Amino acid sequence: MKKYNVAILGSTGAVGAEIRKILLERSFPLGELTLLSGKKSEGKILRFDGRLIKCVYAGDFDFTGTDIVFGAVSREISLEYADRIVKAGCTYIDNSSAYRMDEDVPLVIPEINAEDVRHHKGIIANPNCSTIIALTAMSGIIKKAGIVSATVSTYQAVSGAGADGIAELKNQASSLVLGDKIECNVFPYIIAENLIPFIGTPCEESYTTEEMKMQNESRKILHRPDLCVTCTCVRVPVIRSHSISVLIETERPISPTEAAEAISLSPGCVLYDDVKSDIYPMPSVSSDNDSVYVGRVRRGLGHGNTVALFCCGDQLRKGAATNAVQIAEILVSYD
Amino acid sequence: MKKYNVAILGSTGAVGAEIRKILLERSFPLGELTLLSGKKSEGKILRFDGRLIKCVYAGDFDFTGTDIVFGAVSREISLEYADRIVKAGCTYIDNSSAYRMDEDVPLVIPEINAEDVRHHKGIIANPNCSTIIALTAMSGIIKKAGIVSATVSTYQAVSGAGADGIAELKNQASSLVLGDKIECNVFPYIIAENLIPFIGTPCEESYTTEEMKMQNESRKILHRPDLCVTCTCVRVPVIRSHSISVLIETERPISPTEAAEAISLSPGCVLYDDVKSDIYPMPSVSSDNDSVYVGRVRRGLGHGNTVALFCCGDQLRKGAATNAVQIAEILVSYD
Repeated sequence: MKKYNVAILGSTGAVGAEIRKILLERSFPLGELTLLSGKKSEGKILRFDGRLIKCVYAGDFDFTGTDIVFGAVSREISLEYADRIVKAGCTYIDNSSAYRMDEDVPLVIPEINAEDVRHHKGIIANPNCSTIIALTAMSGIIKKAGIVSATVSTYQAVSGAGADGIAELKNQASSLVLGDKIECNVFPYIIAENLIPFIGTPCEESYTTEEMKMQNESRKILHRPDLCVTCTCVRVPVIRSHSISVLIETERPISPTEAAEAISLSPGCVLYDDVKSDIYPMPSVSSDNDSVYVGRVRRGLGHGNTVALFCCGDQLRKGAATNAVQIAEILVSYD
Repeated sequence: MKKYNVAILGSTGAVGAEIRKILLERSFPLGELTLLSGKKSEGKILRFDGRLIKCVYAGDFDFTGTDIVFGAVSREISLEYADRIVKAGCTYIDNSSAYRMDEDVPLVIPEINAEDVRHHKGIIANPNCSTIIALTAMSGIIKKAGIVSATVSTYQAVSGAGADGIAELKNQASSLVLGDKIECNVFPYIIAENLIPFIGTPCEESYTTEEMKMQNESRKILHRPDLCVTCTCVRVPVIRSHSISVLIETERPISPTEAAEAISLSPGCVLYDDVKSDIYPMPSVSSDNDSVYVGRVRRGLGHGNTVALFCCGDQLRKGAATNAVQIAEILVSYD
C-alpha cells in the first residue's frame, strides 16, 4: 500500500494537534510526518504515535517530496506559504479562509461534495467550522427536499479562536471563582458567564465576515449561487463544540418525520432527537466526537415549507481537523 | 398621595428579591409591605429600605387590606393562592405562567399594551421573560412596519430557573476549576461550559412549553392571533441576562436605518449597535439594568421584508420584576 509524506503547517495549535490525533485514529497511510511551526516553536517536541517529533521551522523547510500539507494556520500565514507548497508539488489542504472563495480551489465537505476534489489545482480548502457543522446537519434534508433559504443562529465555542481562546475562557472561569482580576486578551470582552454576538470583522450591511461565510461558502459547496442565508454568529462560553439553531426553508414539502429520517441516513450525522427522554444535541455530547449531532427536528411555524433543527459538532474535529483528513483520504483514494 | 399595601408571594426567591429592590428604586408609593414565603422560610429575616422584615408564611396570611400582591412563585403555587388573593379584594400581578393565556387575564408589557390593564378582573399576568425581552426589542419595528412572523433563537440565563439555577451554575463552575465532582440538581445536564437546547416541558409537535410561549403570548400581547413565531429556546451558562437572536418578517418594507431609528425611539429599549466600535448587546451590558439592549440590526438576506437583530435583557429585572412593578404603577395611575 502506498504511503504518503505529510506535513502539518501550524502543528502546535489546537487544530494542528487534532490533525495529528486524527491521522492516527483513522489509520491514514502515513510515510514521513513533518511537524512545521513558526520560529517561536522551532525545536518544540511533540508526541506522535509513541514517538517524539521535533518541530521544524516552516520558513526553512523544503516541501519537495512531501505529498500532502495540512494548513492549520491563520489566513495570513496560509497566504504566505501556499505558493511555495504548491510549487513544490504538494497538495495543500488549507483550513484557513485564504482560498475558500477562489474559483480554482474546491471547497469541500466530503459527505456533500467529495467529487469537487477532482478539480483541484494544488489547493483544496476546508470550509469554516460553522459552515461544515450546519451543512452536514442539513445535507439529508437538502437532498430530499431542496433548499430555498436558511435562518441560522450560532452558539460558537472558544476553540474557534484557537488554543489561546480555550486558555482565555479557562483563565477567566478560574478568576471568577477565585475572585481574581479578569483579563481579556483574545476576545474583546469577558466571555466567561457572558456571550459575544460578534465574530470576525465587520463587512457589508453590518454583517460580519464570519456570518457571510455561512451564506457564501454554502453557495459554493452546494453549487447554489442563489442560496440566501441570514446568519447571526455568537461566541458562547463553551470549550470546543459549536451549536447551531437552523430554520431551513425547503423547495418541496417535507414532514418532520421525513426530515428526521433523512438526517438519520446522512453520513456524518447522528439523529439525536427525543425530547421526552431528554435526548438532544449538546456540546457535552458532541465534544471529542467526529459526528454532527442533530435534534429538535420540527416543523417551522411560519408560512412556506420549513424545518427547524438544532445541531452540535466538535469545532476542532468535524469543524476542522477531521474534515481536512477526510479530504486527504479522498485524494489518496484516487491513486 | 395615596399609599398602597403590598405583599410579595415568594419573597425569598430571585424574582421576589428583585421586586423588593425595584419597588424602592422606582419609589413605589408603598404603605405596608408584607413578605410572604413558604413554610420552610417562615420567620426568615430580609432587609428592605434599611429595615429588617420577617417573612410571614403565606398559608396563614389574611390578604384583606392588601391592595396589590406580586406573585413570584411557581405556576402550581400561584394556582393555589390566586383565588384567595382575588377574593380578598387584592389585585394579583402574577409572574408565573398560571393565568397568562386566561381570557379574563390581561397579559401586559407596559411599553406595548398598557391599556389592557384596564380590563383586569383581579389578576394581571406578567409575560414570560423571553417574550418580554424579545417583544420589547421588536416593538418599535412592529409599530412602524407591522409583523407577519418571527424566527427566534434564545440564549437564556440560568436565573430563569430561579436562585437555585444561579447557585447550580456557580457551583459547577467552581467544581470545574477545583476538579471536584459536578452535581446536577436543577438542570438535567451540566450547564457550566455547556448549553441545553431544551427549556420547559415537551408539548405539541416536539416544541417545548417555553418555545410555544413566545408565539402564544406574543399573539395575545399584540392582539394578533394569526402571528407565527418559530422559537428555539436554549439555556446557556450566563447568570441573569437572556439574549435573543431574532429575524422579523414585517408587513411593509423597512430599511435597517429606519428599524434602528424605531428601536432608538422605543420606550424600554437602548439601541446599542455599532459593530465597528465593538458596540453590541451582551449579558455583561444588560445585567442589573432595566433596559433591553438591541443591536446587530440589519437586513435579513432571504426573500420578503425582514430585519435581523440581537437583544439582551436582564431576566430578573425587565424579564420579571421590573415589568411587574411597571404594571403596578399603571394600576396606581388609575386612582
